[in-house]
Amino acid sequence: MITQKEITLPSYGRGCHIITSILERELDEMPDQGLLNIFIKHTSAGLTINENADPSVLDDMETSMRSIVPEDPSRYTHTMEGSDDMPAHVKTTLAGVSLTIPITNGRLNMGTWQGVYLCEFRNRKHSRRLVLTIYS
Amino acid sequence: MITQKEITLPSYGRGCHIITSILERELDEMPDQGLLNIFIKHTSAGLTINENADPSVLDDMETSMRSIVPEDPSRYTHTMEGSDDMPAHVKTTLAGVSLTIPITNGRLNMGTWQGVYLCEFRNRKHSRRLVLTIYS
Amino acid sequence: MITQKEITLPSYGRGCHIITSILERELDEMPDQGLLNIFIKHTSAGLTINENADPSVLDDMETSMRSIVPEDPSRYTHTMEGSDDMPAHVKTTLAGVSLTIPITNGRLNMGTWQGVYLCEFRNRKHSRRLVLTIYS
Repeated sequence: MITQKEITLPSYGRGCHIITSILERELDEMPDQGLLNIFIKHTSAGLTINENADPSVLDDMETSMRSIVPEDPSRYTHTMEGSDDMPAHVKTTLAGVSLTIPITNGRLNMGTWQGVYLCEFRNRKHSRRLVLTIYS
Repeated sequence: MITQKEITLPSYGRGCHIITSILERELDEMPDQGLLNIFIKHTSAGLTINENADPSVLDDMETSMRSIVPEDPSRYTHTMEGSDDMPAHVKTTLAGVSLTIPITNGRLNMGTWQGVYLCEFRNRKHSRRLVLTIYS
Repeated sequence: MITQKEITLPSYGRGCHIITSILERELDEMPDQGLLNIFIKHTSAGLTINENADPSVLDDMETSMRSIVPEDPSRYTHTMEGSDDMPAHVKTTLAGVSLTIPITNGRLNMGTWQGVYLCEFRNRKHSRRLVLTIYS
């Protein structure tokens, strides 16, 4: 069985944000056993799973991505939309645009310290759209 | 229901190439609701989803991956197959080898600006094999 | 049909390790056609698919990840758990925490040179937990 839902996240500024509880609220009825696929319909924001306890991890993730993909316009030809735009595309490819998470006993079966991150790679705030698909 | 198909892509040279329309042609009958998994059977070419409008993004993606994973033989021990080989393996891990995309109303439910990229990380042209699996 | 299983891997030290045969042993009965999702329940170890033949690729992968995400405490604020900890989180995001692999004729339908890697990004040995989900 497949169930599917499209949602719009709240508006987030640049950086990584934990959205696990938003997803759980949107998916009030999860099957006993299955998989959740989360897909982001954008090319300058990504999805990843990482540490959910210490907010400094969110900051360091943003700083690290900045350092791996420098925001230096001389490196890029696609610069029309601002110096944060092309680096945001590269970061999206590095982080990824979809996640598949097991569902067990009606809950997301992640590790204790795992949370779902929305990483906004643009400077300006955006409300990003996700497609949530559960197969069971 | 699962349907599966293995295809060989046209031969592509080094760089990122948008293959969305090839996939759509191969998948002429998509279900109303489901998921498409695309898996590349190689270790020096990757799959990602990114901007489908401005060709300069494809060029900058290639340049960025080159700069993140430098092609400097002194950094690697696996150099037998050429100086582009080990960097190609690393880039494959960074970009990823599979994508899962929602299908809605018989179409790939991606964002307006999203396209599926085949990234060829070797210097020499290759015809890469993909496994396409639809579950609905 | 969905079948699900949670396993604990043997303890591995820092670096990349090929776990394909462990997975195949755990999944003794695979369907004719389907998909396997592998999910790692941790935030400082990742899963990827890469070259299964030359052990030097495993070493170079570890060295490359180290060079992409330097272990320099001055770059991070989340340093409480050691200088390898925050870099391990970043590498987990770059490599990814889940894989979806096609199953065809009762076997993992990967390329000849592909193997599943567990990448342990912490210095200390860990026994990591995976959730294996097969849908067919």
